[in-house]
Amino acid sequence: MEALKQKILQEGSIRLPDVIKVDSFLNHQIDTAFLDEIGREFYVLFGGENITKIVTIEASGIAIGCAAARHFGVPVVFAKKHENKNMDEDVYQVTIHSFTKNTDYVAKIARRFLDPSDRVLIIDDFLANGEAASGLVRMVRSSGAEVAGVGIVIEKSFQNGGQKLRDQGIRVESLAVIEKIKEDEVIFKD
Amino acid sequence: MEALKQKILQEGSIRLPDVIKVDSFLNHQIDTAFLDEIGREFYVLFGGENITKIVTIEASGIAIGCAAARHFGVPVVFAKKHENKNMDEDVYQVTIHSFTKNTDYVAKIARRFLDPSDRVLIIDDFLANGEAASGLVRMVRSSGAEVAGVGIVIEKSFQNGGQKLRDQGIRVESLAVIEKIKEDEVIFKD
Repeated sequence: MEALKQKILQEGSIRLPDVIKVDSFLNHQIDTAFLDEIGREFYVLFGGENITKIVTIEASGIAIGCAAARHFGVPVVFAKKHENKNMDEDVYQVTIHSFTKNTDYVAKIARRFLDPSDRVLIIDDFLANGEAASGLVRMVRSSGAEVAGVGIVIEKSFQNGGQKLRDQGIRVESLAVIEKIKEDEVIFKD
Repeated sequence: MEALKQKILQEGSIRLPDVIKVDSFLNHQIDTAFLDEIGREFYVLFGGENITKIVTIEASGIAIGCAAARHFGVPVVFAKKHENKNMDEDVYQVTIHSFTKNTDYVAKIARRFLDPSDRVLIIDDFLANGEAASGLVRMVRSSGAEVAGVGIVIEKSFQNGGQKLRDQGIRVESLAVIEKIKEDEVIFKD
């Protein structure tokens, strides 16, 4: 997605060794008009997949999942990562490792919101080691629903998350794929 | 907002003494078409206030803040509640007490995303004791920006958060106001 690459080049800031911050439009401050374009792009890619539900994970996935869900005309469910005493007790849950924080956390979705008849598109902001996306895949499958694909805004192809998912036969589409982050340059995989 | 009241009555579930769960459309599974109506309603209420930015707080505020921001045509910034090593160090921050979890947490917004020239609309899903909203008001004001109002989806008027904010002269608009939660009944104010 050319407009996304341009936005990353214009507004992203590099933190070596491997971080590109896009908090001016994607995951802290949000440019909703641009997110709408992102949502449309996911629909262009997965619109033929008979998606019945979008699944994402808090917090950064929520805005993107919503932007996509509007184009698909389906509900979005976000997995919860933090304790919440008002959460259903009857949940699907999965343990996910965070390399960023070097810790494990448990992500949960209330069972009511996933059905074996669902065809799910998993959406997230970044794909690096793939722990979150793989966790969501396991959680969705544990409900009996089908994972129709994974849609990612920014994939870092120098980490192996995308490879791991594709090796499982999962369709992964990333709107921008970063091959390398250098001191003052982001290099995209064309 | 009549459609919201109907949705709460149809889909909400009561957990005594004071919880109404609306996780089928607002804060776990999200009905984006309905959220769009909510966003439009906030624009009807605050569209004349020259809003330049929406501020909300993760996680439940994000989808609602985005839905509103689309109608205002302004960016939305969500305060972060959880440690994140990629966060700017130069932040506005405020300590907020959570009655639900009986603990304090620190909410942060990168300084880059609030400017003294901003007129801010604060958006959140629930207003009960008002700790989160009051914290956001303090944080926005500490930047020099003006708080033009607070927009809430569901206010519980039997708790005092709304009163506290209004006593400070802040314009608070809630799309549904719950006066009382009984065993099998939600009673709205007027």
